[in-house]
Amino acid sequence: MEIVVIGAGIVGLAAAWRTAGRGGAVTLVDPAPAGGATAVAAGMITPVSELAYGEEPLLRLNLAAHDRYDAFVAELEEFTGTATGYRDDGLLQVAFDSDDLAVLDDLRRFQESLGLPVEALTGRECRKQEPMLAPGVRGGLLAPRDGSVDPRRLAAALLAACEKSGVRIVRRRAAGVVVERDAAAGVRLDDGTVLRADRVLLSAGPWSGDLDGLPAGTVPPVRPVKGQVIRLRTRVPFLRRCVRGLVKGSPVYLVPRADDGEIVLGATQEELGFDTRVTAGGLWELLRDARELIPGVTELEFAEVTAGLRPGSPDNAPVMGASDVPGLVLGTGHFRHGVLLAPVSADVLSAALLGDPVPEVARPFSPDRFSEVKR
Amino acid sequence: MEIVVIGAGIVGLAAAWRTAGRGGAVTLVDPAPAGGATAVAAGMITPVSELAYGEEPLLRLNLAAHDRYDAFVAELEEFTGTATGYRDDGLLQVAFDSDDLAVLDDLRRFQESLGLPVEALTGRECRKQEPMLAPGVRGGLLAPRDGSVDPRRLAAALLAACEKSGVRIVRRRAAGVVVERDAAAGVRLDDGTVLRADRVLLSAGPWSGDLDGLPAGTVPPVRPVKGQVIRLRTRVPFLRRCVRGLVKGSPVYLVPRADDGEIVLGATQEELGFDTRVTAGGLWELLRDARELIPGVTELEFAEVTAGLRPGSPDNAPVMGASDVPGLVLGTGHFRHGVLLAPVSADVLSAALLGDPVPEVARPFSPDRFSEVKR
Repeated sequence: MEIVVIGAGIVGLAAAWRTAGRGGAVTLVDPAPAGGATAVAAGMITPVSELAYGEEPLLRLNLAAHDRYDAFVAELEEFTGTATGYRDDGLLQVAFDSDDLAVLDDLRRFQESLGLPVEALTGRECRKQEPMLAPGVRGGLLAPRDGSVDPRRLAAALLAACEKSGVRIVRRRAAGVVVERDAAAGVRLDDGTVLRADRVLLSAGPWSGDLDGLPAGTVPPVRPVKGQVIRLRTRVPFLRRCVRGLVKGSPVYLVPRADDGEIVLGATQEELGFDTRVTAGGLWELLRDARELIPGVTELEFAEVTAGLRPGSPDNAPVMGASDVPGLVLGTGHFRHGVLLAPVSADVLSAALLGDPVPEVARPFSPDRFSEVKR
Repeated sequence: MEIVVIGAGIVGLAAAWRTAGRGGAVTLVDPAPAGGATAVAAGMITPVSELAYGEEPLLRLNLAAHDRYDAFVAELEEFTGTATGYRDDGLLQVAFDSDDLAVLDDLRRFQESLGLPVEALTGRECRKQEPMLAPGVRGGLLAPRDGSVDPRRLAAALLAACEKSGVRIVRRRAAGVVVERDAAAGVRLDDGTVLRADRVLLSAGPWSGDLDGLPAGTVPPVRPVKGQVIRLRTRVPFLRRCVRGLVKGSPVYLVPRADDGEIVLGATQEELGFDTRVTAGGLWELLRDARELIPGVTELEFAEVTAGLRPGSPDNAPVMGASDVPGLVLGTGHFRHGVLLAPVSADVLSAALLGDPVPEVARPFSPDRFSEVKR
C-alpha cells in the first residue's frame, strides 16, 4: 500500500517508521525533516505532571505512551545504532511558595487517586535530592519513573530508522491533498508534482489546516502555540534529573541531558499565531523563574535560545485517526505532548493507515469528536 | 619607516590608518581583524557620563576625542564610502529611583562645574523625550551633543581605509617582539616568521602583556574585564537616542542604531580573567535592568548575545605612548573607552610612532606613569 506522510516532526517520523515496518510503502514529505517544534522541544517524558482533573482520557494516553517508551527507544537505538538521550531517572516537581505548594498538593491527591507512584517531599527533602534548589523551596513531589529524551537525537534516530526501513524522504513542502471520488488519492507538492497514494497521513503540526484540496472542516482547527526555550551548558554536575517548578504560579522546567552538560530551560506559552521571534521578554521570564528556583543557574553558560510552535487543537488534545475523507488519516494537535506521545501515536496512526484496529486508549482522540462543531 | 602594529581592534586599526596616511609603511598583525571587544562594544560616544570626580585628565582626553569624532567619521566615510552608523543626537541619562537620582545630581554638578552642556530633566520631561520610559523614572540629564557609532561598521570602515592606504594585513597571531640592542626591531609571528620593523605598536588589548621578548615590566599589566552585551531588534520606532540608566544603583544602557532597528543593551562588568562565556546570569541582569527602565523592551526581538574583554590598565585609563624599550610604542588599556577614544588615540599613537610631538592632552596617559610601581 502506497502511503504519503505529510510532516516529519516527531509524530510523522514515528508513524512513518512504524508504518514502513508493517509493510507500507511510505513517502515522507517535509521541507526540513526533524525541524519545527521537535527541534525546540525539551523532551520531558512526564505523563502526569502537566495534567489536571478532567483530563483522564489524555492521562491514560500519556501513561500508555510512557509505558511504551522504554521498548520504543530500545528498538530504535538497536535498529539505528543511534542514541536518543533517553533517561528514566525521575522527575522532581517543586513548589516555590506555599500557594505553589497548594497546587502541588492537589496534583498529588489526583495522582494518588489514580494509583500512580508519587512521593511527597518536604523542602529539605527536595534539596537533598537536588542540592542546587533555592533554600526557600517549600516542598515537592518525586515521580520516580518519569524521565526525558533528547528530541533532536530522537528525531535524528527516527529519520535514520525511516531511511533504513525504505521510507522515501521528499524534502519539499506539501501544498495540497489530492481528492478523487471523495477520497484521498495523493499529495500535491509546492512544485506541482503529485505523489499518488492509497492513504495519506496529515501530520503537519500547526500547518495541518493549510493544505488545499480538502473539504472545509475536514481538519479541525489547529493553532500554533509559541514556546521559547533556552539551552544552557554546565561543565560540572548540576541537576540529577528533570526539575519542574511552580514559581509564584508560573511554571518552569529544567531538563538536564545525561552526557553533554546541556540543560534545557523552558518554556513560554504564547498565543501569537505563526510568530517564532525570540523576545527579550521570553528570555527574561524563563531566566527569572529558573533563577528563583535554582539561584546557581546564573552561572551556567548560555548556549542557544529558540522558539517553536506547538500544534494546539480546539481541546488541546491530539487529533488521531481516520478523517471524514476516506484514505485521509489525521495525526496532529499533539500540543505539548508530541515527544511523549510518539510511541503510542506511531501505533495508532500506522494502524489507521493500514486498516488495523486502533488501540482502545486512542479512541477519545478520534477526529470525529469535532464533527458536531463542524456541521 | 617600517611599522608593525600588533592588534587590529579599534585602536590598532585607527592608529594604522592614521600612520599610513602620514607616510609610514604599516603592517597590521591580527588573527581576526576587527574582532575582540570591538565587535561586542555598543559604541557610545559619551565622554562625560561614566566619569567621576578625580578623573579630569581622562575627561579632557574623552572630550578631545568627542571633539574630533565628527571630522574623523566624515573623513573615514568619505575615504572608504562606508557608513559607520555615527549619530550625535544626544544621550539621555535617567534615574530609576531617588537614590539613583542623587547620583545623577552629583554628576550634573560635576558637569556644570566643567562648563559642559547638560540639561536637568524631571521624570515627566524624560518621558516626553523618550515615551517608552517607565512611569516611575525619577529624572534625568540630557547631553545634547553625545551620540554613538556602530563599532562593527566603524571597524570595517577602518579596515577598508587601512587596505586603501596600503597597510598590509597579516592575519596571524603575534607571538613576540624582537628586541635587538635593547630596541624593538620587529615582531615574531606564531609560525616563526619575523616581520622586521623600525617601530612596533603594541595594541593587543588584554593580550598586550602576553608577548615574548620584552623585559619584565615593559608593558603595564592589562587585565581583561568581561562585558556581556545583548543585541535586540525592533520593527517600530522605539528609542530616539541613547539612553543610559541607573536602576537601583546598577548601570545599564540602550543604544539604538539609526537605520536597521538594532538596539544594543549592555553591559555587564566582570573580573573573571579570559572568560568569554555568555551566562544565564549576565543575560538576566541586563534584561532585568532594561525592563525596569523601559518595560516595552520585553516585546523586542532577541538577535544576539556576545561577551568581550575590555583591556583594563592598573588605573583603568589608557596607556599610550613610547615605552622604555626604544622603538616600542604602547596603545592599550582603553578599557570601556576604546571606541570613543579612537580618533585621539590614532593621533597620539601615530605621532609617537613617527617621532612627532604627542598632543598635550595625552601626556597623563604615557606608559611611564607606572614606572615607579615597576622598579
